[in-house]
Amino acid sequence: MQQELFDQLRTHQQQIAKISLQDMFNADSERAKKLSLETDGLIFDFSKNKLTEGTLDLLLNAAKSQGIQAKIQAMFNAEKINNTEDRAVLHTALRSEKTSLLLDGHNVMDDIHAVKIQMAEFCRKIHTGEHLGYTGKKITTIVNIGIGGSDLGPVLICQALKPYRQAGINIHFISSVDGYMFNDIITEIDPETTLFVVASKTFTTQETMTNAHSSRNWFLAQTNNNTAAIAKHFIALSTNAKAVAEFGIAAENMFEFWDFVGGRYSSWSAIGLSIALYIGWDNFAEFLAGANAMDKHFNETTDLRQNLPVILGLIGYWYVDFFDYRSLVISPYNTRLTRFPAYIQQLEMESNGKSVKTNGDSVNYATCPIVWGDSGINGQHAYYQLLHQGTQVVPMDIIIAASDKFSNQEHNDILWSNALAQAEAFMTGKTYATAEAELLAQGMDAVKASEIAKHKVFAGNRPSNMLVLPEISPRYLGMLIALYEHKVFVQGVMWEINSFDQWGVELGKQLAKKVLADIEGGAISNHDSSTTTLIQHYISTRK
Amino acid sequence: MQQELFDQLRTHQQQIAKISLQDMFNADSERAKKLSLETDGLIFDFSKNKLTEGTLDLLLNAAKSQGIQAKIQAMFNAEKINNTEDRAVLHTALRSEKTSLLLDGHNVMDDIHAVKIQMAEFCRKIHTGEHLGYTGKKITTIVNIGIGGSDLGPVLICQALKPYRQAGINIHFISSVDGYMFNDIITEIDPETTLFVVASKTFTTQETMTNAHSSRNWFLAQTNNNTAAIAKHFIALSTNAKAVAEFGIAAENMFEFWDFVGGRYSSWSAIGLSIALYIGWDNFAEFLAGANAMDKHFNETTDLRQNLPVILGLIGYWYVDFFDYRSLVISPYNTRLTRFPAYIQQLEMESNGKSVKTNGDSVNYATCPIVWGDSGINGQHAYYQLLHQGTQVVPMDIIIAASDKFSNQEHNDILWSNALAQAEAFMTGKTYATAEAELLAQGMDAVKASEIAKHKVFAGNRPSNMLVLPEISPRYLGMLIALYEHKVFVQGVMWEINSFDQWGVELGKQLAKKVLADIEGGAISNHDSSTTTLIQHYISTRK
Repeated sequence: MQQELFDQLRTHQQQIAKISLQDMFNADSERAKKLSLETDGLIFDFSKNKLTEGTLDLLLNAAKSQGIQAKIQAMFNAEKINNTEDRAVLHTALRSEKTSLLLDGHNVMDDIHAVKIQMAEFCRKIHTGEHLGYTGKKITTIVNIGIGGSDLGPVLICQALKPYRQAGINIHFISSVDGYMFNDIITEIDPETTLFVVASKTFTTQETMTNAHSSRNWFLAQTNNNTAAIAKHFIALSTNAKAVAEFGIAAENMFEFWDFVGGRYSSWSAIGLSIALYIGWDNFAEFLAGANAMDKHFNETTDLRQNLPVILGLIGYWYVDFFDYRSLVISPYNTRLTRFPAYIQQLEMESNGKSVKTNGDSVNYATCPIVWGDSGINGQHAYYQLLHQGTQVVPMDIIIAASDKFSNQEHNDILWSNALAQAEAFMTGKTYATAEAELLAQGMDAVKASEIAKHKVFAGNRPSNMLVLPEISPRYLGMLIALYEHKVFVQGVMWEINSFDQWGVELGKQLAKKVLADIEGGAISNHDSSTTTLIQHYISTRK
Repeated sequence: MQQELFDQLRTHQQQIAKISLQDMFNADSERAKKLSLETDGLIFDFSKNKLTEGTLDLLLNAAKSQGIQAKIQAMFNAEKINNTEDRAVLHTALRSEKTSLLLDGHNVMDDIHAVKIQMAEFCRKIHTGEHLGYTGKKITTIVNIGIGGSDLGPVLICQALKPYRQAGINIHFISSVDGYMFNDIITEIDPETTLFVVASKTFTTQETMTNAHSSRNWFLAQTNNNTAAIAKHFIALSTNAKAVAEFGIAAENMFEFWDFVGGRYSSWSAIGLSIALYIGWDNFAEFLAGANAMDKHFNETTDLRQNLPVILGLIGYWYVDFFDYRSLVISPYNTRLTRFPAYIQQLEMESNGKSVKTNGDSVNYATCPIVWGDSGINGQHAYYQLLHQGTQVVPMDIIIAASDKFSNQEHNDILWSNALAQAEAFMTGKTYATAEAELLAQGMDAVKASEIAKHKVFAGNRPSNMLVLPEISPRYLGMLIALYEHKVFVQGVMWEINSFDQWGVELGKQLAKKVLADIEGGAISNHDSSTTTLIQHYISTRK
């Protein structure tokens, strides 16, 4: 970024840091209205943040100087913005209704639509019973075998949309290579009615293929070695046709995606087939349509001040680089979004957890924060203590649905009152004088009250965002996820990093092969004494 | 802490920060051996940390100057170390085989043993069928209704020990007040065979009692308003005899615990009854015995250099206050420990997420870090990117079982190779020269290799602890949890804070009542414009 703009922001931060959030509200009765946005019913209230209209002006100037608008266009237009891998980034095309988008002279929309038709048709066959198990029974159980982006998306989306599920279909997920996970799930399934969905682009992911082969072996053991039956009970989300065929999967049951779809952006692609099988194709199509609505908002809202992902991204940037806040907590209040923090954790941290710019220079500023969290209402009884009274400030995104026809009003009133009260409490805090007065009013003696009140002080002035969905439907879930995808993009632009590679996952994989060879061979190669000792310990105890 | 000791540590840190972990290993071939501890088969290798024997000497001096040994004794001896609430802290007594421990002249061991007998007897009646449902069927389903400490412990422990479960018993957890969670679970249970366990010390916890009353209403609707049947299908873990009786629960089915047991330390108490019902009393007793073994190690290992919780706690303190590392990631590799990070997150953050010392003074140093994490092997495909290549250093605790009879060797070999390789990768990193040479060896042209290699550099020198359990059995799980409980105690001593109160949860509760009254009454009291607008929005959309 231009040093001048960075310095302006730094100077401005010193002024903003002196004003409390409460004073900002007291100074402007219209603050909530001014600092809220809405698109398609999704409300984003960012008024309880340490910023003013002036802050936004400076941040938006900075974003413009980073060429954000041209960069958004470049992504949507299939330019190869993933420069280290020389790839386009086209998860938005997966949910587009466009008929044409050229990449290296080829219309990728044709490929995308062809796979969508293949997916929809496969869902139809499973749901109508046209595709039956090898003994003629209907498929009732989906087992998704995948890890990372091939797991977190399907897990989140199936959990969030469980009330929309296809009658008679249930789903399990095998992600970890821990054999217990596999052993546990096979006790609950019936080979005659189970469909294994093996999700690995290369069909070589170690964890996924180990579980896929264990599943295949189990299936054969259960079916008197009926290799022909594999074609009815295993499908692949992959591009490795040869390995898929060798596994025994029918060619028509391989569902392709492309190198312009990153793992953490892949729920919209063939990786979403488990989701579509669970919630039905029409609901899956609504999920895509919701994301597409957010894509259009992001791409077409040229007044960046009105652009939700831009504002959400800039607020995060503001806190990381100017307030030195190093983590962000995601607090969904609806139980169905319990895995949303884990999903966003991967999305943000794998995309922007980097120290090298697109051009190869090292950054000299902080990039992606630690993103963490759990169900907000449960967090109140766990880690909110630190958020209120600890020594570091952690900005929070609160996510809640305005209505939930699968809950009930009494419960939902309480849920809402808690979400709003926490945001208010983070902002207002409690002074020593108030704490002391409350204790005295409860009848505590003055000496004790003066002591205990010290422990009941809340510094306050802790920021939060509030995102309100009309409901947790396929459409709004799609919008919500797309909002964060584009937030990540915006921050990547501010930090000048390529959000779409992930070289940081490679070294561990490389060393794991070496350690595995040591374990299996029993001859330990060169390591530090800790690693060597631990390998020896494992070899000696595993027997 | 004495300023002189603090300054010594600060000066020492500047020296340590100059030496890489790899250089420390290169300088001493015995490093792993020297910087590992073991007790009862549990191995703690802390050699891949930024410290030397000299660091430990300084940290142990500091701990001694804080009076740590006397403070440990004070906890075990029932002194009222929870000063703001004037309470003793006796979760250790819950797993002690002692027959006498006086608190205010009363032998609390008598109370503890009496409740244990009541719990064991109740388990026996459920498991043998002496206690049947109202239509004469055996109880097969436990529904634990609780939140925070009444939920996270039972969830973790039941998940971790699922292979030890009592035949024919399954368990569900209702924690969030989100009515969807309740509605979802009641579709899976049968009133004739379900036992609801309502876990709330005061029997007033808003979320828990809302769910308990919804469960009661549902049960009555299912049983033709059979109020007498409630006594067979609802039990209470509580001390509020009057409210419990009004609910319809039989007096003998109220299981008591005491104000010397904090919520996040309560799985060892009557709160553990759901666990004991699920895994059987003998396994629960083994779980207690494992914790007791760790208690003895902690209390009786007077050479603090050999004391696991002391060393674990001091390493965390060292990173927070001298390296400014603000978060800690917990990486269990075994799937059965997936909820361990959430459990430790509550334990640490609710205990030590504070800014005021025991004596009421504000701290002028950082206290508890953000504690977060998920299954380690899954994390490799999600957030490890940032841990390897991001702009902040995050210490990691890796937890893994040496053997797992519920997994299999092929899978477990891969699991172990990954855990060890990641720890090695965090430490060693990869230089630009190595990255470039690898790319050239793969046949990449020189210009491109020189560019791409910049993105494949790993700074390394990132620390980790390794905790190896012999297996994930009731005993070792008990030891592991007790290890972290005592770690938290050690850090509380270093930070001079009371780890056993939680005033930070109060303000949100207080404001939630006010917001709920606004929602229910429709007349909105005084708030900031954001809170007011959002309350209005909710009121207008919920109808």
